[in-house]
This record gives sequence, C-alpha cells and structure tokens, in this order.
Amino acid sequence: MAGSVRPYMGRSDGLNPICRCGNKDVTAVSVLPQMKEKPVANPVERLMAATAEDMARVNALILDRAHSHVDMVPELARYLIDSGGKRLRPMLTVATAILFGRGTGNAVNFAAAVEFMHNATLLHDDVVDESDMRRGKPAARMVWGNKASILVGDFLLGQAFMMMVETGDIGALGVLSAASAVMAEGEVFQLAKTGDLATTEADYAEVIRAKTAVLFKAACEVGAMSGGADQAGREALALYGLELGNAFQLVDDALDYGGQSGTLGKNVGDDLREGKMTLPVILALADGTEAERSVIAAALGKVDASDLEVQQVVAIFNRYDTLKRTLDKAEGHAEAAIAALSELPDSEMKSILADVVRHSVGRAS
Amino acid sequence: MAGSVRPYMGRSDGLNPICRCGNKDVTAVSVLPQMKEKPVANPVERLMAATAEDMARVNALILDRAHSHVDMVPELARYLIDSGGKRLRPMLTVATAILFGRGTGNAVNFAAAVEFMHNATLLHDDVVDESDMRRGKPAARMVWGNKASILVGDFLLGQAFMMMVETGDIGALGVLSAASAVMAEGEVFQLAKTGDLATTEADYAEVIRAKTAVLFKAACEVGAMSGGADQAGREALALYGLELGNAFQLVDDALDYGGQSGTLGKNVGDDLREGKMTLPVILALADGTEAERSVIAAALGKVDASDLEVQQVVAIFNRYDTLKRTLDKAEGHAEAAIAALSELPDSEMKSILADVVRHSVGRAS
Repeated sequence: MAGSVRPYMGRSDGLNPICRCGNKDVTAVSVLPQMKEKPVANPVERLMAATAEDMARVNALILDRAHSHVDMVPELARYLIDSGGKRLRPMLTVATAILFGRGTGNAVNFAAAVEFMHNATLLHDDVVDESDMRRGKPAARMVWGNKASILVGDFLLGQAFMMMVETGDIGALGVLSAASAVMAEGEVFQLAKTGDLATTEADYAEVIRAKTAVLFKAACEVGAMSGGADQAGREALALYGLELGNAFQLVDDALDYGGQSGTLGKNVGDDLREGKMTLPVILALADGTEAERSVIAAALGKVDASDLEVQQVVAIFNRYDTLKRTLDKAEGHAEAAIAALSELPDSEMKSILADVVRHSVGRAS
Repeated sequence: MAGSVRPYMGRSDGLNPICRCGNKDVTAVSVLPQMKEKPVANPVERLMAATAEDMARVNALILDRAHSHVDMVPELARYLIDSGGKRLRPMLTVATAILFGRGTGNAVNFAAAVEFMHNATLLHDDVVDESDMRRGKPAARMVWGNKASILVGDFLLGQAFMMMVETGDIGALGVLSAASAVMAEGEVFQLAKTGDLATTEADYAEVIRAKTAVLFKAACEVGAMSGGADQAGREALALYGLELGNAFQLVDDALDYGGQSGTLGKNVGDDLREGKMTLPVILALADGTEAERSVIAAALGKVDASDLEVQQVVAIFNRYDTLKRTLDKAEGHAEAAIAALSELPDSEMKSILADVVRHSVGRAS
C-alpha cells in the first residue's frame, strides 16, 4: 500500500469489501493501486478508500438491522439499500469522525442510522412523487407496492433510532431527531409549493435546506461529535455538511434538465412533469416574458408532457442561463463548504472532504 | 371535592379542561360531582380526572409541537389530533407514572411523544388501508391527500423523537424506539398476510402484539420509568400495557363485525373488505365446511362486497361462535393485564387502571 495513502486508511487492512462490481468484491486494496497510478483519483473513490474499514462495519450493521422475521422487510429494504447507492452520507459520518484523529467513537452506529434515515426518505419520496425508477432499476414501490414502501420506510426510521439510542449519546440523538423532523417538514413544504408559480428563491432555498442539506449537516455533525471534535470543530463540520448538501441538491436540480448544457436525455424533465419548483424554473419565471411564462406554466406538473414540451422549456432556461445560474449558486455553496474547513489543521482527510465538494459540483459541467 | 377521589387528582386544581363537549370545557371539577353521585363512573372518565393536570400539560405540548412554519403541517396534524380521540395511550403514560407516587418525572414529554407516534401510525395506516373515515369524519388523506398524510406522519415521528430526546432518558428512548420499529414490522406482517387463508392464530397474535400492544406496553413502561418504578414495577406495567393492548385489539376486531351479537351496522365488515385476517375469520376458516370457507374466501378482500355478503360471513361466524371466542380471548388478556398489577400496593390509581381494562373488554358485549 502506498505510504502516502496509508494515513486515511485508519486501522484498515484494506481487505474489507467496500462495494461490489458484479459478483466481485472491490476492496480498498484493489482500489489503492489505481490511486497510485492516478494521483488525482475520483475524490469519492478516495473517500471510499479512506473510510473502508469503518464502512465495512457500517455495511455489516446495515445488513444486520435490515433483518426481520417478516420476510418482506429485509427483501424490500435490501433491494433498495444494496442497489448501488454510493453511501455518501454514511461515508461522510465516518470521514468527519476520522478527521479529528481520536478514533471514530460511535460513528459506525450513526453512519448506519443516517443511511437508514436516507433510505426511509427515498421510499416515502418515491411514493409521494409516484416515481417508477430509482438508481436505474424499478423503484421498490413498483415491485412491492406503495403500502409496503410506506411501512418499510417507517421500519427503517425506527431501526435508525434504535441504533442511535444504543450509543447513549443524547447530543447526537438531538441532532439526528431534529434532522428527521425538519426533513419531513421540507418535503411537506415542497409538496405545498408544487406547481405554485409564486414560489420564491427564498422558498426554494428553504426546501433544499430542509429536505436535503439538513441530513448532510447532521451526518457530518454527528461524525465530528463521534470523533471527539470540540465545539468549533463540530460547528465547522455542521456548516460543511449543510453547504455541501445545498450544493448537491442545486446540482441535482440542474442535472434534472440535463445539466449546464441543457442536453436532453433519459428522464430529463422529471421535476418539470412533477411540478417541482426548482431554481431553474423559478429564475426563468422571474425573467421570462409573459409568453414564456405561459409555456413553462403549461408544462409544469403535466405528467404526460412530451419531450418537445420539455425541450421548449429548456430552451427558455438557456435563453436566461438559468441552469448555469443554478450551478453558479451551487458553486457558491461549495466554496462555503470548503471555507468551513479552513480553521481545521491540514490533513489528507481534510483534502478529501474538500475535493468531494468540488467533485459534487463538477458532476454537471 | 370528594376526599375519596382527591388522591388520584395528584396536584390538580381540577380546573384544567380535560376535554371539550361542544363549546364547553369539561374540567376535572365538573366531572367529579358526577363521580360522587355515581360511584361506578366510566373508568375512562375516572382516568381522565385522575390525570387531568398532567394531561393539560401534555395537550399544550402536543399543540406546541404540531406547530410548523409550513401551514399544511399543523393544519393536518391538528385536524387528526383534535378530532376527538380519547388520548388513552398518553393518559396511560401519565397514570402509570402517578401510580408510583414519586411525581411524574418526564411522563409529560413521553405521553406527548406516544400520542404523536400513534397519530403518525394512523396517518400512514389510513393511506395503506385506503380508509375514507377516521373518528367519524373524513380521514386526513381525504382532505389533504395521501402524499401529505405520509409526510406529516413522518414529521410527527421526528417530533416524537425530539420530545423523547429532550428528557435525556436513554432507557425510555430505547423502549420507545424499539416500539416504533416493531409497530412498523407488525404493519408489514399484517400487509403480507392480507387475504392469506393460511394465516394462523399464532400469526394473528404476532400481528396484534406488534401493531397495537407494543405501543400500549411502551406507553405504560415509560410511564412507570418516569414515575420512579423499580425493575419489578417497570416490568409489571410493561406487562399490563401489553396485555391491555392485546385485549383492546381483539375487541376492536370483534367490533368490526358488530361485536358479540354480530349485529350489522355502519362500517361493519371493513376488515373483511380489506382482506384483514383477524381472529373471527381465522377461527371460522378453521372450523367451517368447505362451502363455508368458500363463502368467506369470496368476500375476503373484495372491496365492494355487499352488506348481504358480509351478513353471510357473519352468519358463519355466529355458527361457530367466533366473535364470542374472540371476545373470550380478549377477556383472557384482560385478566392477565389486571393480574400484572397484583404485586403493586393497592391504590386508587391501581383500581382505575384495572377498571380501564374491564371497561375496554366491556365495549363489545
């Protein structure tokens, strides 16, 4: 193993599977040689390598706690959890704990809990959004139905709280339970604003903060707490997570229309058809002519809007640069996330965390 | 105020509204004279009077925590929460705390959390069961839609955990978070068994334990813990709650077919139309002839089954006494609940708790 990489590996032997490609386990060791050859590896891969040992424990805990004597529970839960998500949020919990160099404490429990909270939200969101696909395969609700998706989501939330309670860390429990309530509140706010042409930029900022950024914030804050951070360190990582989450959602919302180039492809315009008031829409409604506003309004929330209709809307976005402006806004949050780390001592993990932010906003350009 | 009643009032001045009749607050004081005249008052009213002061704090907390800057959240939450439910579960939390005579500790927070957990479950259940009515008025999902019901349910769960975390009592948090997971598991199990003619009595016992009795158990157990119970007291109240919950659900399942007499009325047979494998059905399938089994199987899960079809099924139930046998089983659990209190010193609150059990099973006869 490369000496320069060793420090981020913590106590890892590099042999714990960190993900599966087909039937083959990818271990930290199998990732590392690649990193040696390409020093500027994908930051998410560097994050995976740097958190591999603890993430192996997180993954084992996730499998264990998705278990139930009711067969449908683990079947549905594992279908979603094993479906190739990057596990970015739990990796952040582990990484922000490792960052402080005092061991990871309760980070494994909190990381698994964060992943359960995230997956519970995905199950419920797919029912609410009537989504057919998730991570490139049929959404769980298409296989087991809406009813099971709602109830297994509830089960995962309950299991998440049990894992948190086991740590005995009331402070971290407060952070995560508040996040849980705020996330649901954000989803309701988004629902209330669906198709509402009067939605403001401030409304949108509140929606993405609540539905997305607050879980990133909590994931990093409880990671820092588990890693023995002082108050300043805890606040720095909370801000890092919040701003990373804001940037992440802004990029997602631009990508839904094909990213900066507004290129049409598969699933482009889903948000439009669902009537979601994301920033590209809000900016175009503010700047467009009456005629352009009518074109957007006609397609918003129209489940069967044609690709041509979506294309017309994206043409308006391009006229007012609203995808580029959305990504610029993401860039601003990304800078704030990186700046939040500035007072922390330099370390390889700190550089990975900063690069993960840059990578996240780079997805769409 | 009657001296013999005073002890259960705790520190109450009797002036806190304990429920509303029309526009008129019913206070503990206005209930008490009635109790003097009729010494065998309705035990639930006695429970209300005995918990009035703490329940006023619980109700204030419930209102406070249903608040959100997203208008739809408190509107929907309060529509359900204020819709005339008896608040039996939170009253049990308060009562089981008072029982130990050492103050109620964190019982107010736990009681409000238990009510939020219960209401979150109702919101999700009504979506899963596609119920139109709840507590005599349109279900929240008929007013705000399924999507809002799912998300506000999630919000209430998050708020419930925040209220628990505020107590700092990790032991009680463990009891309630485990209950939350088990309840969801029970709902999934019930869903998986829907319309399954091979469902056994043991399956049914597991469903009602998980979906109903475990929350009664947790409500009483954390009440006892808040009241300073020792291990034996805690276990006694946990068993009391569990057995009361089992009895309660068995009675509900008999009442769904009109109770012991099998009398047809409004909403009779909802469980049959939803394909729910409750004990009256399971017993009839086991004892009935092939022809009778076919009649039941044809109506089970048939959303538009006619009243005549329901009546034919109830006639089969009456032939094999399955409603009476279901209520006998409830009676057995009720006796176990009362027996669980036997080692505790006699007190007025103990007598109320025992009478509440008797009253619960008396609903259907």
